[in-house]
Amino acid sequence: MVTAILNPLVQEVLDLIGIFAFALSGALLAVRKRFDIVGIVVLAEVTALGGGVFRDLVIGAVPPVAFTDLSYFGTPLIAAVAVFFWHPRLARIRRFVLFFDAIGLGVFCVAGSVKALNYGMEPWATIALGAATAIGGGAIRDVLAGEIPALLHPESEIYAVPALLGSAIVALLAITGTLTPITSAIAALLAVVVRLLALRYGWRAPLARGSL
Amino acid sequence: MVTAILNPLVQEVLDLIGIFAFALSGALLAVRKRFDIVGIVVLAEVTALGGGVFRDLVIGAVPPVAFTDLSYFGTPLIAAVAVFFWHPRLARIRRFVLFFDAIGLGVFCVAGSVKALNYGMEPWATIALGAATAIGGGAIRDVLAGEIPALLHPESEIYAVPALLGSAIVALLAITGTLTPITSAIAALLAVVVRLLALRYGWRAPLARGSL
Amino acid sequence: MVTAILNPLVQEVLDLIGIFAFALSGALLAVRKRFDIVGIVVLAEVTALGGGVFRDLVIGAVPPVAFTDLSYFGTPLIAAVAVFFWHPRLARIRRFVLFFDAIGLGVFCVAGSVKALNYGMEPWATIALGAATAIGGGAIRDVLAGEIPALLHPESEIYAVPALLGSAIVALLAITGTLTPITSAIAALLAVVVRLLALRYGWRAPLARGSL
Repeated sequence: MVTAILNPLVQEVLDLIGIFAFALSGALLAVRKRFDIVGIVVLAEVTALGGGVFRDLVIGAVPPVAFTDLSYFGTPLIAAVAVFFWHPRLARIRRFVLFFDAIGLGVFCVAGSVKALNYGMEPWATIALGAATAIGGGAIRDVLAGEIPALLHPESEIYAVPALLGSAIVALLAITGTLTPITSAIAALLAVVVRLLALRYGWRAPLARGSL
Repeated sequence: MVTAILNPLVQEVLDLIGIFAFALSGALLAVRKRFDIVGIVVLAEVTALGGGVFRDLVIGAVPPVAFTDLSYFGTPLIAAVAVFFWHPRLARIRRFVLFFDAIGLGVFCVAGSVKALNYGMEPWATIALGAATAIGGGAIRDVLAGEIPALLHPESEIYAVPALLGSAIVALLAITGTLTPITSAIAALLAVVVRLLALRYGWRAPLARGSL
Repeated sequence: MVTAILNPLVQEVLDLIGIFAFALSGALLAVRKRFDIVGIVVLAEVTALGGGVFRDLVIGAVPPVAFTDLSYFGTPLIAAVAVFFWHPRLARIRRFVLFFDAIGLGVFCVAGSVKALNYGMEPWATIALGAATAIGGGAIRDVLAGEIPALLHPESEIYAVPALLGSAIVALLAITGTLTPITSAIAALLAVVVRLLALRYGWRAPLARGSL
C-alpha cells in the first residue's frame, strides 16, 4: 500500500527541480564531449531519469513515473535544448556541470527517500535508496560519456556523503513525524550546501594506506 | 490488462529478427575486439536482449520474455556460433556491425513500441520506450566493449532519430487504428532505411557552438 | 507462487558468503584504483549486490532482498571497512581480487539458480539467470572502475563457464529431486574450483580465427 507522507505536489516539484538540474549537468557534459544534439538530449534524459527509474523498479512503482508523467520526460528535453543554444564557453563547462549536479544530488536524495518511504521501505533501505537515486544518474552519465564516475574518482570531493546525509535526515524526520514540505526542503538544501562546500574547500574522504 | 494490438505471431517474428540482427552486431564487435567464444556469446546475448529486458521491466512484463521464451535466448546463441565460424575478415567487420545494428534498430523500435502499447503505455511513453528498446542494447554492447556508445559519439551518423521515427509512426498507426502486420513492417523498414541512408550519406545531427 | 526448494537458511548463508566474497573483490579493486573510503564502500556494495538485484527484478522478487534484509546490505560494508584497514600491498591485490571473485562466482551461480527455481523459472532460464547473477556484479564492478569486464577480456581465463556449470548442476539436481544443502554446496564448490583451476592453469576459451 502506498501512502504519501509528503504532499504529492511538493514531491513532484522536488522531483522536477532535481530532474532539471541533473539534465543540465548531463547536457553540459555532452557539449563538452562534443556530442551532437541527439547525444546532448540522450545524456540529459539518462542523467535526469536514470536514478529515478532504478528506484521505481526496486520499490515496485511500475511503470516508473518517468514513463507515466510527461513532465518528467519533457523537462530534460527543455534543459537539453536550453544548453544547446545557451551553453557557457566549453572551458567553463566543468564548473557548471558540478554545480547543477550538486543541486540534483541534494534534491534527489530527499525526493527519492520520501518516495521509498511512501512505498513502505524500512528506514535503512530508504537511506540506501535515496542515496542511490541521487548518485545513480550521475554515475550512468559518466560511464556513457566514457569517464570513471565522479562518485568513485579519487580526485573527487565527497559525493555520496552529502546524499547519504540528506537521505538520513529525511528518514529521521519521517520516524519522528516531523517531515513537512519545509523540513524536507531544508534537508535538500543542507545536502546541496554540503556538496558545494566540499567542492569549494576540497573536502575529500580518506584513502587506504599505500594509495598516496 | 494486456491487449495484443498486433498479431502475437507477427510481434514474435519482429522480435526475433531484431534479436538475431543485434546478436550478429554484438558477436561481430566481440570478434573485432578479439574476445574468446564466451565473450562473443555474452556480447551477442546482451546486445540482443538488453533493450528488451529493460523495456519489459519498465512496462511490468515480468519475468521479461527473454527469460520465458527459449527462442529469445537461443537465437543470439545461434548468431554467435555462426559468427565464430563464418565471420568476415577483421578489417571489414565494422561495416557489418553497423549494418546488422541498423536492422536491429529499425525492427526493435517497432516491436518495442507495439509491446509498450499492449501494456497500456501512453503514446508519448511508447515512443520513448520503443526508441529505448532499440538503442539500449547497442549502448550496453558498446560500454561493455570499452567504447563510447555509437549512439552518443560525435562522429556517428544519426542513430536515435531513425528509432524515434519508427516508434512515432507506430504510435500514430495505433492511434488511427491502422496498425497491421503490413503497416508495422513498413514502419520498421522505413527506420532501417533512414539509418542505412544516414550511414551512406553521412547524415549527422547538429553540434552545439564551439564544438567544431 | 514462491516455493523454497532449499532450506531458506541455507539459501541465505550461501547468499551472504557470495556477497562477502564479491564485496572483498570490489573493495580490493577500489583500493588498487586508489579510490577513497566512499569509493571503496560503493564498489563493494555494487559488486556484491548488483547481480542479485538484477536477478530479483527479473524474477519479480520486488523489492530485491538487498533492500529488505539488512544483512545483505550491511555485509559489504563490513568487507569494505576490513579491506580499508587490512588490505595487502597494492602490488599483490590483483590475485586477491581474482580469488574472492572466484568464490563469489561459484556461490552466487548456485544461490541465484535456487532462487530462480523458487520463483518458478524454467530450468534453461534458471541456468541463464544463475550465471547472470554470478557474473553480473563483477561486470558492473569492472565497468565502474573503468576496465573491460574480466568476463569479456581476451586475456581472461574462462569465467562464465564455471558459472554456467554450477547453475546447470543445480538445475539438474532440482529436476531429479536431489537438491539438498549438501549437494548445492558441492555444486558451488565445484564451480569455485573450476574457476580457480582455470586461473592456475590458464584455461582459456577458443578465439575466432584471425584473432591471434
